Amino acid sequence: MVRAPGGRVVATTDLLVEGRHFRRDWSPPYDIGRKAAAQNLADVVAMGARPTALLLGFGAPPDTEIGWVDALCDGLRDECAQVGASVAGGDIVRAETVVLGVTALGALDGPAITRSGARPGDVVAVTGRLGYAAAGVELLSAGRREPADLIDAHRRPRPPYAAALGARDLGATAMLDVSDGLVQDLGHIAEAAGVRIEIDGAAVPLPPVPDGLRLALTGGDDHAFAATFPNRMPLPAEWRTIGRVVEGPAEVVVDGRTHGAGGWDHFRPPQR
Amino acid sequence: MVRAPGGRVVATTDLLVEGRHFRRDWSPPYDIGRKAAAQNLADVVAMGARPTALLLGFGAPPDTEIGWVDALCDGLRDECAQVGASVAGGDIVRAETVVLGVTALGALDGPAITRSGARPGDVVAVTGRLGYAAAGVELLSAGRREPADLIDAHRRPRPPYAAALGARDLGATAMLDVSDGLVQDLGHIAEAAGVRIEIDGAAVPLPPVPDGLRLALTGGDDHAFAATFPNRMPLPAEWRTIGRVVEGPAEVVVDGRTHGAGGWDHFRPPQR
Repeated sequence: MVRAPGGRVVATTDLLVEGRHFRRDWSPPYDIGRKAAAQNLADVVAMGARPTALLLGFGAPPDTEIGWVDALCDGLRDECAQVGASVAGGDIVRAETVVLGVTALGALDGPAITRSGARPGDVVAVTGRLGYAAAGVELLSAGRREPADLIDAHRRPRPPYAAALGARDLGATAMLDVSDGLVQDLGHIAEAAGVRIEIDGAAVPLPPVPDGLRLALTGGDDHAFAATFPNRMPLPAEWRTIGRVVEGPAEVVVDGRTHGAGGWDHFRPPQR
Repeated sequence: MVRAPGGRVVATTDLLVEGRHFRRDWSPPYDIGRKAAAQNLADVVAMGARPTALLLGFGAPPDTEIGWVDALCDGLRDECAQVGASVAGGDIVRAETVVLGVTALGALDGPAITRSGARPGDVVAVTGRLGYAAAGVELLSAGRREPADLIDAHRRPRPPYAAALGARDLGATAMLDVSDGLVQDLGHIAEAAGVRIEIDGAAVPLPPVPDGLRLALTGGDDHAFAATFPNRMPLPAEWRTIGRVVEGPAEVVVDGRTHGAGGWDHFRPPQR
């Protein structure tokens, strides 16, 4: 959060490296653009802010096709349009592989929704898909190109922006977008708020694969939103209640057992 | 420029790639941090804004020494402190080489100073060093490590922030920081404003090397500031008047001759 004249601005930045965060042989450039924008816009929305602008630092080898770059930029622009934001500028440099430095800015009309606001007694709810993108990556890694809905989930996440933008009016006490895995990300709320989070495995929405619960609990990149709300009235249908906030050590417990975090490790080997 | 509640925010982003924008064998990490921050903070100041925050996307190989990263971050922080800004957050990823995605934010207390405001009759002035960093790069490329002031100029630019922050009160009609070379950067003002810019070579401040004028006109990376001002009163000493804005085709002329731009080409071969 950054002070601005008369208000506050939220800003978030991600660095995306070819071979690690995307593969040109797995995703068309338009989808890489959509995804690069989505993950930053979701971060802004998770803070309770309206995304306003996106900046792109673009690094690429000199032989990169202009058409490839155009399609990437189209993807960035179209994802921004989902939330009324625009691509405002950027930088272009030569690099050995494609590198994207994406920054999203947002405007706060009220207090930010942070990770530390969860309180014992709150319910935990999610909106959006869990485990779909991770299932898609496992399929692609095995050389498969279907089912299409799982492959597409990896290529182009669909963060439920509207539901998350409505969380403030529902009294959300904490919120984040699920980028590294549900358990690991809820762990950030548990730590920041000093609370214990209990999840009912049977309430977690699953992707349509045999190993659905594992992927739903540990798979990142779908950019669903997880939030905590005061337990005072039923949530609208787009939010699914999956657990509760209680007093206790800062940890996440699924069906009574502390669950290994096992989400995204930034220094594990690249996608190859 | 990005609308924010009750005001406007300026944001600028740069991608810096090891081997191209910096070399770990040429610069200590602290200086790389100082320089990475300086080039973005200078961009913000050139728009007439107060820098408020900096975000870092940091990519590095897994065997990068923690001490190296700490020193880089110290450099970012200390450069931010020069202008009252702070490092507000960022992202960390694995990459084959060190990559820095730096975003700086600033607050506008009045209208932005853009490139298009220059008007015939204005004077052109600069504050800060020109050609020093380029002289330093030529020395380093030749295997030399002195004179120290030129080597240091490459490693750690010293943008004259205070002078540039005062440009608004002097009535500056256009401003930018000299990052790609004086002639090339003034060309951006000439194009944006639809004016001709005439430079007096004898008035340009030179670095202390035999080929000083060439380096002062074409060398980037010192992050001096160039601005245009109404010709109504003498400028304070930190601004040196070097030319004038006239009607005519959008170009930059030095001593009556159109000067090849010859500044930084983003797709020329890397520093090796």
